[in-house]
Amino acid sequence: MNIALLPGDGIGPEVIAQAVKVVNAVGKKFGHTINFEEAAVGAAAIDLTGNPYPEATHEVCLRADAVLFGAIGDPKYDNDPKAKVRPEQGLLEMRKKLGLFANIRPTFTFPSLIHKSPLKLERVEGVDFVFFRELTGGIYFGEPRGRNEQGTKAFDTNVYTKEEITRLARMGFEAAQKRRKLLTCVDKANVLATSRLWRETVQELAPEYPDVKVEYEFVDAVAMRLIQWPKAYDVLITENLFGDILTDEASVISGSMGLMPSASVGTENKLFEPIHGSYPQAAGKDIANPLATVLSAAMMFEYAFDMKAEAQAISDVVNKSLDEGIVTEDIAEGSKAYKTSEVGDWLA
Amino acid sequence: MNIALLPGDGIGPEVIAQAVKVVNAVGKKFGHTINFEEAAVGAAAIDLTGNPYPEATHEVCLRADAVLFGAIGDPKYDNDPKAKVRPEQGLLEMRKKLGLFANIRPTFTFPSLIHKSPLKLERVEGVDFVFFRELTGGIYFGEPRGRNEQGTKAFDTNVYTKEEITRLARMGFEAAQKRRKLLTCVDKANVLATSRLWRETVQELAPEYPDVKVEYEFVDAVAMRLIQWPKAYDVLITENLFGDILTDEASVISGSMGLMPSASVGTENKLFEPIHGSYPQAAGKDIANPLATVLSAAMMFEYAFDMKAEAQAISDVVNKSLDEGIVTEDIAEGSKAYKTSEVGDWLA
Ligand SMILES: CC(C)[C@H](C(=O)O)[C@@H](O)C(=O)O
Ligand SMILES: CC(C)[C@H](C(=O)O)[C@@H](O)C(=O)O
Repeated sequence: MNIALLPGDGIGPEVIAQAVKVVNAVGKKFGHTINFEEAAVGAAAIDLTGNPYPEATHEVCLRADAVLFGAIGDPKYDNDPKAKVRPEQGLLEMRKKLGLFANIRPTFTFPSLIHKSPLKLERVEGVDFVFFRELTGGIYFGEPRGRNEQGTKAFDTNVYTKEEITRLARMGFEAAQKRRKLLTCVDKANVLATSRLWRETVQELAPEYPDVKVEYEFVDAVAMRLIQWPKAYDVLITENLFGDILTDEASVISGSMGLMPSASVGTENKLFEPIHGSYPQAAGKDIANPLATVLSAAMMFEYAFDMKAEAQAISDVVNKSLDEGIVTEDIAEGSKAYKTSEVGDWLA
Repeated sequence: MNIALLPGDGIGPEVIAQAVKVVNAVGKKFGHTINFEEAAVGAAAIDLTGNPYPEATHEVCLRADAVLFGAIGDPKYDNDPKAKVRPEQGLLEMRKKLGLFANIRPTFTFPSLIHKSPLKLERVEGVDFVFFRELTGGIYFGEPRGRNEQGTKAFDTNVYTKEEITRLARMGFEAAQKRRKLLTCVDKANVLATSRLWRETVQELAPEYPDVKVEYEFVDAVAMRLIQWPKAYDVLITENLFGDILTDEASVISGSMGLMPSASVGTENKLFEPIHGSYPQAAGKDIANPLATVLSAAMMFEYAFDMKAEAQAISDVVNKSLDEGIVTEDIAEGSKAYKTSEVGDWLA
């Protein structure tokens, strides 16, 4: 197996290093030969090459069987609205060029961490849903975008084709068939033309999946219900921007944000990454929680290589680390906090 | 005082009726002559005239000193992506034609209801922030919007001018000066051209308000922090679509969604409405909670007529009704539930 490693910015390199240890241990245990090829992305790549997603990095991704990605983002670019190159451009270009049109983000709870949820126990216990966020379309990529000549007016374009909606929606329907058979289409069809196309397209597909119950909800209503009664959801599908906001909202309800993995997949390529960001304040301190990245590696074994036992071995050891308290300071709570690298060693 | 009454759809007419009782009682107590003029809007107006915001209604609003509005929306339009006229168009047209560019949505807690919050007590206790949502621009109104000829592609345009951002931001800065002096600008400047103009404009205005601390946060991060630590916020300013999602998310954290009022204001006109929707399932049953509408009437006295004592009298009686349990079934919890109309009578 050839895995492209893209550590990226902030705590990215540290958490990726732990995932590598674990992947190597799994390779050894199950007798797989695993090759890693590392490449730069984000602010790290700008520093090196001036480009947040260099062509060389793209080639590394293309020849790999899967990409394991850390995080992107550096605060030095955030408050400079006029910066010409930004780390996030690299992320968007990578998604687009690799055709990663579906971002799959599960939300579930860990019994040993559920007390950290900001929500009351009865609301969050047993929560188990998954978002399919469209990742290569919408307002993130639509043209035209920019400013008028005087710079006094700015614009962005949200655009979706039926085809883009269909391929994402089908993934959602299929996932729902394997789960609790409920699909929620999240849109703003009472305002947006794009959302009306989403709703229409999903309505047309629905008869092909007669075992799946389909619900249509406005994005503002979902933003409420995710807090009020998140157990109501099973599979949610939505466009890029709504998905950005809602999956982040969803990520905090379980109380274990630092543990949530994600997959971004397309027809040709597959990328796995923790949902947390680059957490620059913690960079280089060996304190970041590596579990989300390690669990992203588990998703990689399952979704990229169809190796369920390998994925399970990783989940099992993560659960064991939680049970035995071999965890970083963000979840240690009074008991001994381990370093990022120590947790990685222990897991491996 | 001339007040335009726009009951709208669903429970709108029932909750507006209670606000009228209370406003009349206040008029009597404080010696004001209050005239009401009623007009149709939303699905109710479509049924009557084919138009969700008829010209006659607009004229009623224009000649009034303030508009008291119920709710809009009827499920019969929601799952018909091809419907030619929708109730929401009336709402958007009303906002645009009346120039209501700022939607002001406070979130605060009622001690007697805080236990209903989905969040743990320590997270929500003392929460007190206010959103200034831009209401007449952005992707809600931008052109072009629609479909390609074959109907296989849809598009919307997000657009903002510096002027639109400036007038909304100034309201936020001024509000912050009267509160805890913290302003959070919510955008997606790492992706959107419009958001970069927002951030740039706010950065340029900031030196005029040296006593206000300004923070810039991405919309996805705010969606998280609103749940994790909502006490961190004081005044938040944001564009139309982000505001739609985030103010609804914010509305549930206090546990008293049915009580939250809002104001939509412009240079010429002012409109007051509960933040809850038309709640069609409850329509005609005399069970809807009228308190958000009654408190919107309090906001009207304060913001439209600069009558603080009148506003205070309404807040006081609302608090009294909560203390004495003269409340509708949604907050009665085991003790006797009163009808919508009974609560209105009692308050008046
Ligand atoms: C960094 C940013 C461009 C990105 C996005 O908005 O997609 C991030 O928030 C995410 O969700 O992966
Ligand atoms: C009904 C709808 C068009 C409206 C909006 O999106 O503005 C509503 O959600 C609101 O927030 O007032």
